[in-house]
Amino acid sequence: MSKYDHLYEKTISSQPIYDGRIIKVKVDEVLLPNGNTAKREIVNHQGAVAVLPITDDNKMVVVRQFRKPLERTIVEIPAGKLEPGEEPLACAMRELEEETGYVASQYTPLSSFYTSPGFADEILHVFVATGLKKGESKPDEDEFVDVLEVTLEEAHALHQSGEIRDAKTVVALFAWENKMLRERG
Amino acid sequence: MSKYDHLYEKTISSQPIYDGRIIKVKVDEVLLPNGNTAKREIVNHQGAVAVLPITDDNKMVVVRQFRKPLERTIVEIPAGKLEPGEEPLACAMRELEEETGYVASQYTPLSSFYTSPGFADEILHVFVATGLKKGESKPDEDEFVDVLEVTLEEAHALHQSGEIRDAKTVVALFAWENKMLRERG
Repeated sequence: MSKYDHLYEKTISSQPIYDGRIIKVKVDEVLLPNGNTAKREIVNHQGAVAVLPITDDNKMVVVRQFRKPLERTIVEIPAGKLEPGEEPLACAMRELEEETGYVASQYTPLSSFYTSPGFADEILHVFVATGLKKGESKPDEDEFVDVLEVTLEEAHALHQSGEIRDAKTVVALFAWENKMLRERG
Repeated sequence: MSKYDHLYEKTISSQPIYDGRIIKVKVDEVLLPNGNTAKREIVNHQGAVAVLPITDDNKMVVVRQFRKPLERTIVEIPAGKLEPGEEPLACAMRELEEETGYVASQYTPLSSFYTSPGFADEILHVFVATGLKKGESKPDEDEFVDVLEVTLEEAHALHQSGEIRDAKTVVALFAWENKMLRERG
């Protein structure tokens, strides 16, 4: 019994649709608070991690990457899926080094959020990485990225032009700006 | 021919998996830049709109809503799916009024972003709504929400406690804070 029971949707039945490498899909029939029923199309995902890497000269490290669902490249902060049982911080360290070659001396949690809670349970854990030292990038064999380093102004221009155009990177951009505004203020 | 052809993934074949009310699912086989092939699991979605509503006394209007993929309630800025052919601004106005009863005299585009470009093409258009006047909320018949008005400090507390926990609302929170920091600075 919770104080939000008046919003609860009870599962009546659940139909598996697809079981893939990255996502599972199912359709649940639910009982609504008013006694009606409805269908809920649901994508299950193992979760992911993203890193906002800030260099000592105050640039953000981002990657340009082709995204098949969009049929275009966009510019994003480094990110990757959690392996089964993997800790978000370990995943963040692995993905930053694989995609960009950078190793960070400090990781600070920024936010954890669901990317699209209306139909998906994917959660994304975002860290800020500082104290960066450059090594060799080692992308996955089916991963192809260009690494860029951009100032806050350049990042805003990429957002304006639609090249920065995904939730985690917009969160990172606004959070970074927030940090700079506080430090200036 | 584009300058990012070295990142491009050409479709070799596409297998439809599911065609639902909210999402479609397909699996594409792609040719990678290195000549190997890979599978891409793709969710198609018609796109959505979200509104960051700021009242004249500087509170953010949010809704608490049960999200079936998460099996819990979270606190989000008002949002809804685009109808076929609908303009994002018209959708924003409709959703704000339906979910909260508020009508806004001014809408300002904040950002448009893909929620999870690794597997989905869902785009979310976010507007800031100001000059709010309260009327009657008219939620969809299968939509049940509690409307809340919170200060920036209360919104941060909801983020810390994990009740604000989705991408669009985290974007809204940081954007709102940036606006306040600029106005103070």
